[in-house]
Amino acid sequence: MEQTQTTNTQQTHEAGHETQDPRLETQGARHEGKDPNTIYIGKKGVMGYVLAVVTQFNNNSPEVKIKARGNMISRAVDVAEIVRHRFLTSATVKGIHISTEELLSEDGTKSKVSSIEIVLTK
Amino acid sequence: MEQTQTTNTQQTHEAGHETQDPRLETQGARHEGKDPNTIYIGKKGVMGYVLAVVTQFNNNSPEVKIKARGNMISRAVDVAEIVRHRFLTSATVKGIHISTEELLSEDGTKSKVSSIEIVLTK
Repeated sequence: MEQTQTTNTQQTHEAGHETQDPRLETQGARHEGKDPNTIYIGKKGVMGYVLAVVTQFNNNSPEVKIKARGNMISRAVDVAEIVRHRFLTSATVKGIHISTEELLSEDGTKSKVSSIEIVLTK
Repeated sequence: MEQTQTTNTQQTHEAGHETQDPRLETQGARHEGKDPNTIYIGKKGVMGYVLAVVTQFNNNSPEVKIKARGNMISRAVDVAEIVRHRFLTSATVKGIHISTEELLSEDGTKSKVSSIEIVLTK
């Protein structure tokens, strides 16, 4: 049970998150999770995701989920912290959940990767 | 069982959230001696910290805190997940807290870094 995070799985996770336009971020989230209130953290700069979260709250979403896997977990925490300390001081952390996901890499081997879900409410 | 991290170039943080400073490791080590029930996650391999957590539980600690800052946050989640899925299936996540800490670097500038605290109970 090797916990590996290969470049391949990372790229798979990043599919649909390559653009720099923050407005497209919700499209990417919808594509992956079919939920615009879920922001998936990838390789882009932190502030792009911060903007995506703030935008969702401004669209009257009562809560926004921030999800990340592997090394992006640290960035997800950054996003949540920057949102609630700098942009939406009324936002609070409703809950944080961690789990393990199994990924299938291109060569057919399975690997496990940690994931996090941070739920913010306004 | 190391977590292979092949895409580390992406770990630049924005908005004052700096990447993990190597000096923080020694700080963590210093804290570690004060409270044996708190495991500070640094740059060592994941399994070393997993062993530290399991050892604390075996020393009859009812709960163990796993703390990390910056990029080490992802590793803290790995440690918690490996402990409860592989070594102590009776262990559960009692709570997860995230916060922002202000650090004073050598040149006197202040920077903010995210931190996480994962509380495991047996």
